[in-house]
Amino acid sequence: SKLSVVGAGAVGTSLAYAALIRGAASEVALMDINEKKVRAEALDMAHGSQFLPPAKIEGSDDVAVTANSDIVVIAAGAKQQPGETRMDLAEKTVSLMKKIVPGLVEQSPEAVFMLVTNPVDVTTQAVLKISGLPDGQVFGSGTVLDSSRLRWLVAQECDVAMSNVHAYICGEHGDSEIPLWSTSTIGGVPLRQWEEQTGQLSFQRRKEIAERVVGAAYEVIEGKGATNYAIGLAGTRIIQAVLRDEHLVLPVSSMLHNWHGISGVCMSVPQIVGREGVIKPLELPVSAQELVGLQNSADHIRTVAASLGF
Amino acid sequence: SKLSVVGAGAVGTSLAYAALIRGAASEVALMDINEKKVRAEALDMAHGSQFLPPAKIEGSDDVAVTANSDIVVIAAGAKQQPGETRMDLAEKTVSLMKKIVPGLVEQSPEAVFMLVTNPVDVTTQAVLKISGLPDGQVFGSGTVLDSSRLRWLVAQECDVAMSNVHAYICGEHGDSEIPLWSTSTIGGVPLRQWEEQTGQLSFQRRKEIAERVVGAAYEVIEGKGATNYAIGLAGTRIIQAVLRDEHLVLPVSSMLHNWHGISGVCMSVPQIVGREGVIKPLELPVSAQELVGLQNSADHIRTVAASLGF
Amino acid sequence: SKLSVVGAGAVGTSLAYAALIRGAASEVALMDINEKKVRAEALDMAHGSQFLPPAKIEGSDDVAVTANSDIVVIAAGAKQQPGETRMDLAEKTVSLMKKIVPGLVEQSPEAVFMLVTNPVDVTTQAVLKISGLPDGQVFGSGTVLDSSRLRWLVAQECDVAMSNVHAYICGEHGDSEIPLWSTSTIGGVPLRQWEEQTGQLSFQRRKEIAERVVGAAYEVIEGKGATNYAIGLAGTRIIQAVLRDEHLVLPVSSMLHNWHGISGVCMSVPQIVGREGVIKPLELPVSAQELVGLQNSADHIRTVAASLGF
Amino acid sequence: SKLSVVGAGAVGTSLAYAALIRGAASEVALMDINEKKVRAEALDMAHGSQFLPPAKIEGSDDVAVTANSDIVVIAAGAKQQPGETRMDLAEKTVSLMKKIVPGLVEQSPEAVFMLVTNPVDVTTQAVLKISGLPDGQVFGSGTVLDSSRLRWLVAQECDVAMSNVHAYICGEHGDSEIPLWSTSTIGGVPLRQWEEQTGQLSFQRRKEIAERVVGAAYEVIEGKGATNYAIGLAGTRIIQAVLRDEHLVLPVSSMLHNWHGISGVCMSVPQIVGREGVIKPLELPVSAQELVGLQNSADHIRTVAASLGF
Ligand SMILES: NC(=O)c1ccc[n+]([C@@H]2O[C@H](COP(=O)([O-])OP(=O)(O)OC[C@H]3O[C@@H](n4cnc5c(N)ncnc54)[C@H](O)[C@@H]3O)[C@@H](O)[C@H]2O)c1
Ligand SMILES: NC(=O)c1ccc[n+]([C@@H]2O[C@H](COP(=O)([O-])OP(=O)(O)OC[C@H]3O[C@@H](n4cnc5c(N)ncnc54)[C@H](O)[C@@H]3O)[C@@H](O)[C@H]2O)c1
Ligand SMILES: NC(=O)c1ccc[n+]([C@@H]2O[C@H](COP(=O)([O-])OP(=O)(O)OC[C@H]3O[C@@H](n4cnc5c(N)ncnc54)[C@H](O)[C@@H]3O)[C@@H](O)[C@H]2O)c1
Ligand SMILES: NC(=O)c1ccc[n+]([C@@H]2O[C@H](COP(=O)([O-])OP(=O)(O)OC[C@H]3O[C@@H](n4cnc5c(N)ncnc54)[C@H](O)[C@@H]3O)[C@@H](O)[C@H]2O)c1
Repeated sequence: SKLSVVGAGAVGTSLAYAALIRGAASEVALMDINEKKVRAEALDMAHGSQFLPPAKIEGSDDVAVTANSDIVVIAAGAKQQPGETRMDLAEKTVSLMKKIVPGLVEQSPEAVFMLVTNPVDVTTQAVLKISGLPDGQVFGSGTVLDSSRLRWLVAQECDVAMSNVHAYICGEHGDSEIPLWSTSTIGGVPLRQWEEQTGQLSFQRRKEIAERVVGAAYEVIEGKGATNYAIGLAGTRIIQAVLRDEHLVLPVSSMLHNWHGISGVCMSVPQIVGREGVIKPLELPVSAQELVGLQNSADHIRTVAASLGF
Repeated sequence: SKLSVVGAGAVGTSLAYAALIRGAASEVALMDINEKKVRAEALDMAHGSQFLPPAKIEGSDDVAVTANSDIVVIAAGAKQQPGETRMDLAEKTVSLMKKIVPGLVEQSPEAVFMLVTNPVDVTTQAVLKISGLPDGQVFGSGTVLDSSRLRWLVAQECDVAMSNVHAYICGEHGDSEIPLWSTSTIGGVPLRQWEEQTGQLSFQRRKEIAERVVGAAYEVIEGKGATNYAIGLAGTRIIQAVLRDEHLVLPVSSMLHNWHGISGVCMSVPQIVGREGVIKPLELPVSAQELVGLQNSADHIRTVAASLGF
Repeated sequence: SKLSVVGAGAVGTSLAYAALIRGAASEVALMDINEKKVRAEALDMAHGSQFLPPAKIEGSDDVAVTANSDIVVIAAGAKQQPGETRMDLAEKTVSLMKKIVPGLVEQSPEAVFMLVTNPVDVTTQAVLKISGLPDGQVFGSGTVLDSSRLRWLVAQECDVAMSNVHAYICGEHGDSEIPLWSTSTIGGVPLRQWEEQTGQLSFQRRKEIAERVVGAAYEVIEGKGATNYAIGLAGTRIIQAVLRDEHLVLPVSSMLHNWHGISGVCMSVPQIVGREGVIKPLELPVSAQELVGLQNSADHIRTVAASLGF
Repeated sequence: SKLSVVGAGAVGTSLAYAALIRGAASEVALMDINEKKVRAEALDMAHGSQFLPPAKIEGSDDVAVTANSDIVVIAAGAKQQPGETRMDLAEKTVSLMKKIVPGLVEQSPEAVFMLVTNPVDVTTQAVLKISGLPDGQVFGSGTVLDSSRLRWLVAQECDVAMSNVHAYICGEHGDSEIPLWSTSTIGGVPLRQWEEQTGQLSFQRRKEIAERVVGAAYEVIEGKGATNYAIGLAGTRIIQAVLRDEHLVLPVSSMLHNWHGISGVCMSVPQIVGREGVIKPLELPVSAQELVGLQNSADHIRTVAASLGF
């Protein structure tokens, strides 16, 4: 199977590196407009081939390098600058997508397209339209990363393995995202009971955790100028769910049609992901308050998308 | 880290094989009274070393081969015969444990002891007493296997990835075990809602699934004379949770002290498992009906244990 | 990718189990004439799915279960009995292949076929003819296992990692096989120099090691009635070389055409293995004495094959 | 087991990321003088924990974070600038080591120390003296990376799996390094025979390949401003050899005592690496011409080291 990564920046290369170490694909192509850089990145990974599962690795500024991909990850774009909101990036990103997406679709009309470039929800919505592909074939990495951050914070607080924390943060991958505490469980124990039994995860603490998740990207960017490692791992996990047709539930960003009444916007809710891309959403119950939050988040994305003509 | 497996039969060797492939321990010792067999089993695995992560592999009928283990898995015993219930095996098993456990504890006083030999709950209870070790250091593989069977059946029915099915079957590893449907979720969706939304997992269907889980061991034994592969995988997962100190929630069988009022019996409920063994149980909410089932299961184990003097 | 294993005995199931743990294929089908057993084996593995990379697992006595395989492994047959030579099994095995191979080829005309059933060289030669497939598409696991045994013994003697021992034992998978010491190296050091430097691996010691390799199967069968774990691992490694198109050098058994003058016989020499099966042999230099040994081995296989009409 | 990485730059973080994905250690500590950056790097990795084998991840500018490490990797330093030779960096690097090494040794007196900072050979020689530790406990990643580059180029040329190419490039990790063609083999076939049989790897081609290896770092740095991914993988492989006590042969840089007459200098020759660090060198035969090259390489390192007072 072939994975193409468009945009060989901090995010794209960390993702390709993780995917190669995991053996997620037998062919990995990097594409970037910066020819020297993309060749060097591919070469640097190929130099480590002795320590990787077998895979063909290529890098080029020619879109043909992505031909016949099974999955195309788009991480091209500008780094989020300290202070800049994800939405600020919207306009430049959308023009970039108009330029690159048609060529990518031409090279790999059957591929699943995963957007990573921010603002990921608006970008996904734009690319869905630009590409003319069916809904399920185009989606964004969405809040898979944010949910991982949430679970890590909860696991630390409760001193249990991360795989025992089941919690989603949904909506916009950005400031308006909403943790869905009402259906969260720890080892099967609903959050409310966990709080009663242990005193952990009080209302106040949950608020702090949610704020830390929302602020996480800023916190990391402030310290190192980018976030790349966690998104590389989250992206690789989504890629595996697609290429192995796992039917795995992941909060990716895709076009909603009456999900708890929310329609006509790309944002993250728990979706079943497999070989064809997004298969269908889960009808996860949400509290009234969570629903209001998600509606606000949807409105926010919709407004930005509309202002950009999508 | 060192893993010892006592009883190099179908179960013990499948478990050691899976653990070696996974690289779960850097040293694996097999111990069995059948000297020729145990040497041959260790030799057969060592012959595949080229294809395994580095590990030292030994086999002997001398208990000294287990010295200084971090975890000791006891799978010695008789195969469950077609027709025979797990409880029928109790008496011979307990005498066997009286013979072998003191020597094993002498060799590895700091080790965590995991029982696999059936009837696993009663055996665990007996070994806890025979060994004189603290509660958490001795436990049985319990219903980790049964819960995996349950999840597999549910995942098939609902066409989602197995990792999205969160459901425990608890109590006795045997005919009286109880699926805890009331806290089961699929990708975060509580079962009741899932049923309403999809029509899947109706009361009738849940009953059938639970019966298939209870009957699974019989079904496999009927066809192949033993069950070994799934328990090998389940056992390896538990071993990893211990050796990597994961604080992972697993329904292992261990001594209960007022778990929803149940005390003084070894049976499976969700427990946090780490380097020291069983750390503490989760107070998973149960329905009134589930509680009655679990109490019956506890009574059943208690009765057999008592009749054997434990 | 789809792996089918024909013959769900000790060897076939250990191989399928290792392949599942490794995630070597996304679909694994077991086929055996013993319907109850093959269903039970597949069920036993499926019950452990929670602990495996995602894969579809099936078991049936209907050859249709193998349809559209990428690789078919044939391990059907009788266990080697204590005392019985591999060649004694030849006649029953060949009749078995006549019965099952046409149906398997019909189901998966594009598949690579790997024989494991003993005597593996003669069986490969017969199946090549019976199937009517091109040479490279049919091969036997050959002395990949034996070479692993050889390397393990050498690594133990020299106290280096197994991956630093490069040595093949070639020819018949059986009593006439020949270790190719003249090209063996340890961490790059030719054997002769290693012996001079360390005193290890003297002529006498090499003879003992070669004898232990030849006797290894007997030694294990004597102790446990079968060999299955090492062949399961060796077979899985070959499967990965095929499915990932690795162009990996492996001493598999396939039809030779003037390899150091040896022709018209299936036996093991170092071959490049990839997606299409056996691609071509390496022209590994051999000493005069090694060549004589390999010619004898070839004659031996040829005689048995001829006596069976191949 | 605990891995500490000192210097959370491009190299240190790529190495930590690869080590976490591989599950090479149960605890990974990053240390850097840039407090904000090192916290952000650790946080970015921790945010991906959901997708990693269980491990504790920390980042700090306080050397205490490295306490009780099993292995300490030193990758602190300045990036190699385009145009700058590795030796140009020597002086600043040595002062840096004088500042940080004593504190690291105090925190983890039992740890194995692996140097990555360039010029790696001189730095290793300096750190060996500064630390006061025994020879085997301090070594540099040396030409493990360069040998991987060499093998990749040879594998491409010959169209075989990388694991079938056995070739070392030894001496200085830098311009004077020497490929040891005389003992190189491909699938066991000595290079000379391979050339005769295939016409590949002619004298001219080997020269080009060697030049590309020597130029590889410059090529990558020219394109992307650093090399980090391949060294991350190579470093992780060495770490695993140490932590799993593999006795694996690797061309790491360590103090030589009469290796083919070369003494009193840290440079790379094939060494057996295990839990205690470098155990002993292999007496790999070298041609007269190769020896001259290695002596020159040694002289070069010795001169620089001497000019810095080591
Ligand atoms: N969705 C998430 O969770 C998430 C997380 C982190 C980063 N991001 C986003 O990912 C994107 C990339 O971040 P980064 O840190 O890797 O940035 P970066 O600046 O390091 O890399 C961006 C790369 O895109 C390339 N590029 C620009 N135009 C291109 C074109 N027309 N075709 C091909 N390549 C082109 C650039 O040359 C550069 O190499 C940003 O939008 C960032 O906000 C998203
Ligand atoms: N808990 C579970 O989920 C589960 C699942 C499957 C099997 N089991 C149980 O596991 C046990 C083993 O099953 P099996 O199929 O491997 O049986 P088996 O007969 O194949 O192997 C049992 C082994 O124990 C050895 N043994 C007997 N006495 C011994 C002693 N004193 N010291 C050391 N070794 C001794 C035997 O020689 C034999 O090799 C049975 O009790 C079975 O019911 C439990
Ligand atoms: N090449 C090697 O290195 C190597 C190593 C070990 C074993 N072997 C060989 O592998 C073979 C299998 O050994 P085993 O220990 O698994 O034996 P086994 O008796 O355990 O299993 C053989 C299986 O083949 C099945 N079978 C018989 N006829 C069949 C048919 N017509 N169609 C489908 N299935 C059929 C049987 O029902 C049985 O389940 C033997 O020939 C053995 O000598 C080879
Ligand atoms: N040996 C090899 O094969 C190989 C390969 C690639 C790079 N390198 C070398 O690795 C080194 C690091 O390269 P890079 O690209 O990561 O550089 P980088 O500039 O990205 O990172 C260096 C890090 O070291 C930190 N540092 C500086 N002084 C420190 C101190 N006193 N304590 C702790 N941390 C300190 C810096 O803050 C910085 O984060 C360089 O010397 C480079 O030449 C070696």
